[in-house]
Amino acid sequence: MATHSINITEKFKLFSDNWSPKVIAEMNDYQFKLAKVEGEFVWHSHDDTDETFIVIDGELTIEFRDRHVVLKKGEMVVVPRSVEHKPSAENECQIMLIEPKGVVNTGDSGGELTAENDVWI
Amino acid sequence: MATHSINITEKFKLFSDNWSPKVIAEMNDYQFKLAKVEGEFVWHSHDDTDETFIVIDGELTIEFRDRHVVLKKGEMVVVPRSVEHKPSAENECQIMLIEPKGVVNTGDSGGELTAENDVWI
Repeated sequence: MATHSINITEKFKLFSDNWSPKVIAEMNDYQFKLAKVEGEFVWHSHDDTDETFIVIDGELTIEFRDRHVVLKKGEMVVVPRSVEHKPSAENECQIMLIEPKGVVNTGDSGGELTAENDVWI
Repeated sequence: MATHSINITEKFKLFSDNWSPKVIAEMNDYQFKLAKVEGEFVWHSHDDTDETFIVIDGELTIEFRDRHVVLKKGEMVVVPRSVEHKPSAENECQIMLIEPKGVVNTGDSGGELTAENDVWI
């Protein structure tokens, strides 16, 4: 494993597709992924793991079945395992995801927004 | 576990001591910690885990035995397990650490800079 510095802003310049997380680093069996998101994602959950969202730029809404949280730049949330959630962003938003390697973006729901996994940039 | 938003900048206002990581979130058996650092830390390594540093503000240097990396705001590095490293910062720097719960800041080295673990803010 290379102990090189990773510039998060520069990494965001390397891709433009939405809802398609790109891996930038690995720590043990966890991965750091960047994603650009705009519009509505699908309701889903991850039965085997919590999932961390950090907003790098823009504003992200995460709906839960009973409420929602709005995350601005520099804010984060940990979504517990098995909790249904639906991310959305009115305007393009840049986020970092931290979760175990192998987690599929659409969790238990699948569908056309399911992204290829383990894509590094 | 509460699915509330966590504002990283606001959390940094809650403490002032250096080299004393504070936990702000937990994901599975991993923790997100904030630390203010200034001056030189001790050489150490963590035999059981990688360790991730993200610079939130300022500039952090991490020395390795054969070279060093300089991390500015928005840059990160994953230090592999067992790799000796020594963080330092000429001026106060704000960092986020991500690592498994229970990791001691001074790793195998101990000493007076060893901080109390699992301190939440």
